[in-house]
Amino acid sequence: MPTRLKFVVAYDGRPFAGWQSQAGGNTIQDVLEQAFVEIAGEFVRVHGSGRTDAGVHALAQCAHADVPARDLTPETWTAALNASLPAAIRVVRCAYVSTNFHARFSTTGKLYRYRIWNDRYLSPFEEGRAWHVPFPLVPVNLERDARQFIGTHDFAAFAVNRGRSEQSTIRIIHSARVRSAGKCITLEFAGDGFLYKMVRLMVGALVRAARHEKAAGEIRHRLDEAGRSEARARPAAPACGLYLVRVFY
Amino acid sequence: MPTRLKFVVAYDGRPFAGWQSQAGGNTIQDVLEQAFVEIAGEFVRVHGSGRTDAGVHALAQCAHADVPARDLTPETWTAALNASLPAAIRVVRCAYVSTNFHARFSTTGKLYRYRIWNDRYLSPFEEGRAWHVPFPLVPVNLERDARQFIGTHDFAAFAVNRGRSEQSTIRIIHSARVRSAGKCITLEFAGDGFLYKMVRLMVGALVRAARHEKAAGEIRHRLDEAGRSEARARPAAPACGLYLVRVFY
Repeated sequence: MPTRLKFVVAYDGRPFAGWQSQAGGNTIQDVLEQAFVEIAGEFVRVHGSGRTDAGVHALAQCAHADVPARDLTPETWTAALNASLPAAIRVVRCAYVSTNFHARFSTTGKLYRYRIWNDRYLSPFEEGRAWHVPFPLVPVNLERDARQFIGTHDFAAFAVNRGRSEQSTIRIIHSARVRSAGKCITLEFAGDGFLYKMVRLMVGALVRAARHEKAAGEIRHRLDEAGRSEARARPAAPACGLYLVRVFY
Repeated sequence: MPTRLKFVVAYDGRPFAGWQSQAGGNTIQDVLEQAFVEIAGEFVRVHGSGRTDAGVHALAQCAHADVPARDLTPETWTAALNASLPAAIRVVRCAYVSTNFHARFSTTGKLYRYRIWNDRYLSPFEEGRAWHVPFPLVPVNLERDARQFIGTHDFAAFAVNRGRSEQSTIRIIHSARVRSAGKCITLEFAGDGFLYKMVRLMVGALVRAARHEKAAGEIRHRLDEAGRSEARARPAAPACGLYLVRVFY
């Protein structure tokens, strides 16, 4: 009888074609499943809390896998997986859980971070790890604008349709915080769930509002019923600045 | 008549074979000189404040070059150099200076930082950017031990002889600070100058002292006259954790 293993995984998204398994093979899910094969000697399906796009990072993505019953402690699983995985993916910890737990369906919320490098030139250490915005941003203004997202809203105008009908585009944002340290501005959004590209579209709208005075009312308008379905240019912030920080269960 | 341009440069040391120009060509000095050729149309020698080894990083290395007189502002030099340079090297700023200034001979001191990732597994974001030390270190103990370096000492036992007779191995360390944030421990040393591999040998000795109780007296012994010339195993911390933070003039 297999046992359900829950694990927390950090990854640098740059070398990978996103989370979700695909034909090319070089996805985080694929690489994790290869590591499980090496240890378990058989194919093991990995279920993540959700996909991340190519270039998106994770400090603590959550996943589960039904592994063949082995006399392995969670610590041994962690060490064995890390021994098989490339350095760009690290399993932070493992735990055995009940089969009632599902990495995707049991989530109650997520915390995302978006990093902006706000200086004329991008630091050599931020290549692929932050969005380079060369014109000056004012963190307190970003936070003021970001607070518009807090609460229950229909985020249809902050989502890219993946070709399947979403059951609902209503989501709850619990918090929106902006901090700055040196040249780095960090935006954090906690919510009950996020639509496809939602954080990147939210950050794209915030930076657009900061740059163009005319765009000041756009966020509110896109959250309102009238603006939701309008066809408009919707700039998404690039993948490289986005980090999945925590998954809540 | 050429004009002397002083410039501050940040680099991720990983893709390069160190600072100093060499036959292979892939050094930071070589790449900078290529960028100057592209802009100035002729060879321009770049003089750094000192070498950094392969894999060592810089937040603010300082250098100068005698550039052909052109109607270029320092800001234009900065932009033009960054347009030619790979993303792993960024010119932070340029300034025209007197020919009395020399990037190497005018230095009055330097500040180095050493980063240690102190956790069982190395974060995917720290690969090549910190030394992974998996056994627990106590920052306050590291700082207590590091304070032994402060003052004027003969650092002969904390240097690797590069095959040329150093005029003196006496150096002054002005400060030695240890901070920790999450899993990252940062050591900073300011001094009037540093011998070849000096910071890495100091950090290597500190971590050895933290791990082996027997090694507790070694740093003091190696600074004393008796221990200076003893042939002993001298572990150097790896290049990847070292950052040249500032050059003082």
